[in-house]
Amino acid sequence: MMKITFLGTSGSMPTKFRSLPSVGIEREGDAFLFDCGEGTQRQAMLYSFNLAKIKAIFLTHAHCDHILGLAGLVRTLALNKRPHPLYIFVPKGSEKSIEALVKFDKALIKYEIIIKGIGAGKVYEGDDFYVSAFRLNHMIPTVGFAFVEKERMRFIKEKCSKLGIKGTMFRELMEKGSLVVGGKRIKLGNVTFTVKGKSFVYATDTRPTESTVKAARGADLLVHETSYSGKEVELAKERYHSTAVEAARIAKRANCKKLMLFHISARYGDPELLLREAKQIFKNSEIAKDGMSIVL
Amino acid sequence: MMKITFLGTSGSMPTKFRSLPSVGIEREGDAFLFDCGEGTQRQAMLYSFNLAKIKAIFLTHAHCDHILGLAGLVRTLALNKRPHPLYIFVPKGSEKSIEALVKFDKALIKYEIIIKGIGAGKVYEGDDFYVSAFRLNHMIPTVGFAFVEKERMRFIKEKCSKLGIKGTMFRELMEKGSLVVGGKRIKLGNVTFTVKGKSFVYATDTRPTESTVKAARGADLLVHETSYSGKEVELAKERYHSTAVEAARIAKRANCKKLMLFHISARYGDPELLLREAKQIFKNSEIAKDGMSIVL
Repeated sequence: MMKITFLGTSGSMPTKFRSLPSVGIEREGDAFLFDCGEGTQRQAMLYSFNLAKIKAIFLTHAHCDHILGLAGLVRTLALNKRPHPLYIFVPKGSEKSIEALVKFDKALIKYEIIIKGIGAGKVYEGDDFYVSAFRLNHMIPTVGFAFVEKERMRFIKEKCSKLGIKGTMFRELMEKGSLVVGGKRIKLGNVTFTVKGKSFVYATDTRPTESTVKAARGADLLVHETSYSGKEVELAKERYHSTAVEAARIAKRANCKKLMLFHISARYGDPELLLREAKQIFKNSEIAKDGMSIVL
Repeated sequence: MMKITFLGTSGSMPTKFRSLPSVGIEREGDAFLFDCGEGTQRQAMLYSFNLAKIKAIFLTHAHCDHILGLAGLVRTLALNKRPHPLYIFVPKGSEKSIEALVKFDKALIKYEIIIKGIGAGKVYEGDDFYVSAFRLNHMIPTVGFAFVEKERMRFIKEKCSKLGIKGTMFRELMEKGSLVVGGKRIKLGNVTFTVKGKSFVYATDTRPTESTVKAARGADLLVHETSYSGKEVELAKERYHSTAVEAARIAKRANCKKLMLFHISARYGDPELLLREAKQIFKNSEIAKDGMSIVL
């Protein structure tokens, strides 16, 4: 089970109702951040997202609306005596900007901050999940991220019971791949099935891209930027952003289960227009709001 | 008339209810900021403080809880096509930290940002007010600020009327210092009185200091940091902060009209304890809260 919390859902500048971009995932006692706009640490407090559990921060790009919250966040973690290192992933070439921001003064930060420049591909791996990056199309080097739970093996209870598999045999069977039970050799594959893991895909800021369609194929949740209405596609092209129509087309083509429209510009006091446009193309669309949580 | 708005009232780190330190003044169509903690730009939006009107930002010191909001604020002003230069005042020696933060990347900021290192004394002067800095006692170079309206001259209406002063004579009398009316020479001082201007004094972060007593003498409003309860004076000394008792003693000795306790630590979920302590010494004490406004 993973819980996704929208800590900030605006773009470029905050509004009364939306803080700057940041999305958090909490899963199995660990936490991860995707982008870290100004105010993220306080939004986390407001929406009960546990900053102390953060393992890594994934930055899509080094535009300031997506990163300024880092400076305060790393210092608050230091004040709270964080013992663990913190990984910050950012597209290759932007490491220095991030380092300049995080270390702009001589603040005493006793834990290690590891800033890693990344390209497309797997960037982080846990026991039962991984995070991979994929290229986006924005003004500066930008990547999206897919947080993917690995397939899990489950025993077919009835079959195991009938064959007499019990107690420590399960572990033995898992380790060895096969086991003799009651004189009969049983193969692991014959008494198990696989469960697909959940997946969350985060694509901002960007023009619509094929790489997003590919990364988001069958995703449980696609968070896609929606800086403009479908009527403003020329502006979106010029500024390397997406319209609600374009975001919805990506979700439809990738056959996602749900689309959250994200990175809502200050100009849309009422983003219902964006939602109407998206729903016409992809029905299970919703507008992300600060503080909203989704459990996958 | 000046309107003072508390945009953030916490210290060190934000809380659910308090953003990081920043106090704004709006007066005669201009605006000024004192400190600029992370999130100040959004707090300004929430509490209808007009950022576009900011002439100058006065920073007490370069600790990150007081300055991190600058990075986003200057960029939002740029996005909004600010035409005017922006002055940022900071204690001498901390200019480079501020510059490193404001210019950490190559963001296109088309208006001029002038960062000035200051010591004690007058640092900014308007037509009918000035801002002066006074030394505080904190871990790093720190100053407090007094925003002082100059004395204003007012005509004694009845006297002027009796002597036949009217129309353009007022201006002439003001310019020349005296005027012959009905064959009689009238001196400006004989038909006018002076009105004391209002004053706002901002002292954070600091141990209690004599310089604050002096700067706050008779002030209409003293905003003084209160990081600890009176029972924690040893901690306050160690960390160069003040207790509620110490802040109240300053307000009492300076004969201020009102004291706002400010820079309330995350540890005080219920700051009523601080308020009780302060009120025992200085009755007109209040706890600053985010969004609160005071008109002087």
